[in-house]
Amino acid sequence: MSFNIEDLAQLDQRFRTNLINSITGFKSVSLVGSISTNKQTNLAIISQIIHVGANPPLIGLLFRPNVVVRHTLENILSSEFFTINHIKEGFLKQAHHTSARWSESEFKTCGLTEEYLDDFSAPFVKESSIKLGCKLEEAIDVKTNGTHFIIGAIQFLHVPESNIGDDGFVDLEAAGTVTCSGLDSYHRTEKLARYTYAKPEYQPKEI
Amino acid sequence: MSFNIEDLAQLDQRFRTNLINSITGFKSVSLVGSISTNKQTNLAIISQIIHVGANPPLIGLLFRPNVVVRHTLENILSSEFFTINHIKEGFLKQAHHTSARWSESEFKTCGLTEEYLDDFSAPFVKESSIKLGCKLEEAIDVKTNGTHFIIGAIQFLHVPESNIGDDGFVDLEAAGTVTCSGLDSYHRTEKLARYTYAKPEYQPKEI
Repeated sequence: MSFNIEDLAQLDQRFRTNLINSITGFKSVSLVGSISTNKQTNLAIISQIIHVGANPPLIGLLFRPNVVVRHTLENILSSEFFTINHIKEGFLKQAHHTSARWSESEFKTCGLTEEYLDDFSAPFVKESSIKLGCKLEEAIDVKTNGTHFIIGAIQFLHVPESNIGDDGFVDLEAAGTVTCSGLDSYHRTEKLARYTYAKPEYQPKEI
Repeated sequence: MSFNIEDLAQLDQRFRTNLINSITGFKSVSLVGSISTNKQTNLAIISQIIHVGANPPLIGLLFRPNVVVRHTLENILSSEFFTINHIKEGFLKQAHHTSARWSESEFKTCGLTEEYLDDFSAPFVKESSIKLGCKLEEAIDVKTNGTHFIIGAIQFLHVPESNIGDDGFVDLEAAGTVTCSGLDSYHRTEKLARYTYAKPEYQPKEI
């Protein structure tokens, strides 16, 4: 089924939201921990996450326009620190529930545990296996639709030792990290293959 | 195992590259089709893809600094059109092989088929089930590390009709779309749950 530019413009709003949120492909999904100037913690599930660079280690998050209350973005801009915590199958429903409009801390309302590591002011999620501590490095406004692209410098990282290979590759599947699609669908994964660095001279081989 | 800011700075370069590329979580991965001013087609596997907005439909791609030859980025900037084609298990090795440094078109060298749809100048991948046609909308320089964040307006979309739900949600698993982790690992998925829109008043329910 094909949609051209006119078809896309004429779609029902909710249908288009689901459709366009799906067709990016499977997404990174994590819980972002932050803290406000009056010390209220916040936890938000976010799937607009992208690798930005390895040296220095950088990660990017995209936030919707700051027209209504967006605690996470406000907290990042004011405190400059935030955490990214991978989601596991065991607390998937709690993680999804953080996306409701809470006035209290989502840690409390959704039943997840604050953890403080390496002098980071922002809270980590104790239940997560993989946790990143980040400092705001750059905040970019996307003119086209008013979204905010936040670049974080990764300053702290926790990964279970048994999930890190000799070459630094992290086995996310063994760590229990889930992926998502669309706005509300969560998936576990099953490894198909890991391939050698691609060269024109030979076919990729499985590692 | 924890790494603080000094630990991360002192890691072996290759180890850090694998580590930091892994800890974003599972990623969207697709083949980006483009065409040069002298009409040579190009196909590149890219995992730095992010949903930017649904109305208007926008998608973002992040490209490494343009210090060496980067055909895809050059083609997008010169022609303004590109395609994003989901990767299926059946042509995973060919898709990975596009990341080698080819001088000819990757369609030819990697054994994938050019397809032209809806008057798009950029080539689609015939073997893909889900295909997006995009027009360059905004090119943003990330100052921190010199990467380029490209915003594309989605102007054409092909999805098998059987994979689109009544609410617009696309069943990527049924469509055979794969996900990736790190630089070189590919995975199929298995659905865990789809949840209702989260509200404070009740626990999320499975859809």
